[in-house]
Amino acid sequence: MRVGNTHYRSIWTGEDGLVRIIDQTRLPHEFVVTTLADLDDAARAIRDMLVRGAPLIGATAAYGFCLGLAAGASDADLDRIGDLLVRCRPTAVNLRWAVQRMDDLLRPLPEGERREAAWREAAALCEEDVATNKAIGRHGVELIRAAWQDKGQQEPVHILTHCNAGWLATVDWGTALAPVYRAVQEGIPVHVWVDETRPRNQGAGLTAWELAAAGIGHHLLVDNGGGHLMQHGRVDLCIVGTDRTTATGDVCNKIGTYLKALAAHDNQVPFYVALPGSTIDWSVEKADRIPIEERDQDEVLYVAGRLDNGRLDRVRIAPPTTEALNPAFDVTPARLVTGLITERGICPASRQGLLALYPEQR
Amino acid sequence: MRVGNTHYRSIWTGEDGLVRIIDQTRLPHEFVVTTLADLDDAARAIRDMLVRGAPLIGATAAYGFCLGLAAGASDADLDRIGDLLVRCRPTAVNLRWAVQRMDDLLRPLPEGERREAAWREAAALCEEDVATNKAIGRHGVELIRAAWQDKGQQEPVHILTHCNAGWLATVDWGTALAPVYRAVQEGIPVHVWVDETRPRNQGAGLTAWELAAAGIGHHLLVDNGGGHLMQHGRVDLCIVGTDRTTATGDVCNKIGTYLKALAAHDNQVPFYVALPGSTIDWSVEKADRIPIEERDQDEVLYVAGRLDNGRLDRVRIAPPTTEALNPAFDVTPARLVTGLITERGICPASRQGLLALYPEQR
Repeated sequence: MRVGNTHYRSIWTGEDGLVRIIDQTRLPHEFVVTTLADLDDAARAIRDMLVRGAPLIGATAAYGFCLGLAAGASDADLDRIGDLLVRCRPTAVNLRWAVQRMDDLLRPLPEGERREAAWREAAALCEEDVATNKAIGRHGVELIRAAWQDKGQQEPVHILTHCNAGWLATVDWGTALAPVYRAVQEGIPVHVWVDETRPRNQGAGLTAWELAAAGIGHHLLVDNGGGHLMQHGRVDLCIVGTDRTTATGDVCNKIGTYLKALAAHDNQVPFYVALPGSTIDWSVEKADRIPIEERDQDEVLYVAGRLDNGRLDRVRIAPPTTEALNPAFDVTPARLVTGLITERGICPASRQGLLALYPEQR
Repeated sequence: MRVGNTHYRSIWTGEDGLVRIIDQTRLPHEFVVTTLADLDDAARAIRDMLVRGAPLIGATAAYGFCLGLAAGASDADLDRIGDLLVRCRPTAVNLRWAVQRMDDLLRPLPEGERREAAWREAAALCEEDVATNKAIGRHGVELIRAAWQDKGQQEPVHILTHCNAGWLATVDWGTALAPVYRAVQEGIPVHVWVDETRPRNQGAGLTAWELAAAGIGHHLLVDNGGGHLMQHGRVDLCIVGTDRTTATGDVCNKIGTYLKALAAHDNQVPFYVALPGSTIDWSVEKADRIPIEERDQDEVLYVAGRLDNGRLDRVRIAPPTTEALNPAFDVTPARLVTGLITERGICPASRQGLLALYPEQR
């Protein structure tokens, strides 16, 4: 997507053979491109959330694999690289998926061919991600078009989203926001309610930044606000992303997603989840078996942002002795999900629905 | 309640005949006592939320009435004072209730007797508030005791609360927190999950501060977190306050209360609302007739707190061009409320339940 007059992806390789990312911890206040020069840089970028979002974590892991091979490409090196990367974010299934994909490809190859094959594969993975998200947008826009027609093509379609599942969460286009970008391209008027998404405020910092950069109408909401708007008919459609989807259609996404799904259900607002097939964990039946990452309590006790003097800093919002609990994800049961928007089409959030689109998993 | 070695109420009169409050916008970082010298000071304290919480708003309005009479005590003055105060916070029914009470008392009196009567009445209103909240605690503690017994008197009872309905929201004791303070006095172990309560963070700033000052175990949570904890059996009981309760038991409280009530209902966690009878608006049947205050968008776009250097400041969390919507309250329908804890006992959230406790309203 465009930033100023330049088209950016969220990850790319430079002519120097190193990897470039946008440091998302500095958004929305500063647009900073950061270089990943080795495996540790890539691991740190994932762990400290310079990159985040399931698909982009996968892409960064793939490039991290490439960078890691510089220090050695033996079978033991493959183990070392994969182990390090997988530990960076325990909940993200795309991380495991990308590492496994690299390992599966590289291990059968002679050591001398592994480096070049790895770079080719990481690039291919990124291209596939872009194609996948474009397809999600193509399918999802039909929901927005239908909502617009239901409203008599008068006022904009009001879409609520949680966290950031935009192009910054993927290589390009995004998952939950791909249908929104597509709608704008097709001339359907949209307006987005952006949950700020505490504790890390990816809604306020990333989704609002993406929408502002694209000139798409939006309002920021506190995470407490969406239920009230749904009670008053001010939300036509919810679309969120997911970090991991079970084989039965349960959705593990950013903490707070479950609360919005409950409100949508209570007010008959359609609640859709957009995802690439790689986010589906076919090995997990029941979502309560998904490990939920608990992150540093400082993310809750402090809020980061820009002071009036322009400096980036953080403020403490709690008393000195207060501690916090910081679970990063929650699980929205399939019964609350109207449908899943995938690169292969839209399906019910159920085993049957998913298998109809992914018959090779039968 | 105690702050250090001193027992404080949230509002009191000094020997100079002026009114003192704790400036709650400075908590949890600084404990500052502020003087209200005239009606404008009182109105500003309510409007700018130096005081907040339905009962304390009522008490401050009563003292504001007293201060306003200094400039004149004619019938026209009563009109002037009442009009000014009522406009400060449109949703707070206690504000209207306190102003009406003062007006009803004063208007029949000769002008020369109004000032003294007003000060007596404001003090009486505060004493009644303390007695009311003590009674709410006495009734509500039985719910906590029962939960403790259900758990085999092993680990603490985990109580989730939203916003601040502690002693800072009232003259003393609080509403939702009165049963918690009472439980501690009676030796029942409790632990409180504190919703931070964006946008103004009254949970992080006030509830956590109260609990820390009282040495009561608690953890701060982002507003997104409570549903996840309820899904995992980590919440035994929810208790919240209310700014206005309809005659049929719908509850208008801080934005986000509705989402927690949905999660409690979905996970069979009891959801109680604690309130003084003065919070009941017998004139309103359907909650969608309650006007919902929309506050300044800066409350959403910025977060206030303490920098590492000790200075209080605010950080912007959104891009420069992003706007926000800031509804301050939402309505939790009676069907999601397990019961109402009042000064007269606990009742179902229904017209019948309320009338059984307040038969004079039949």
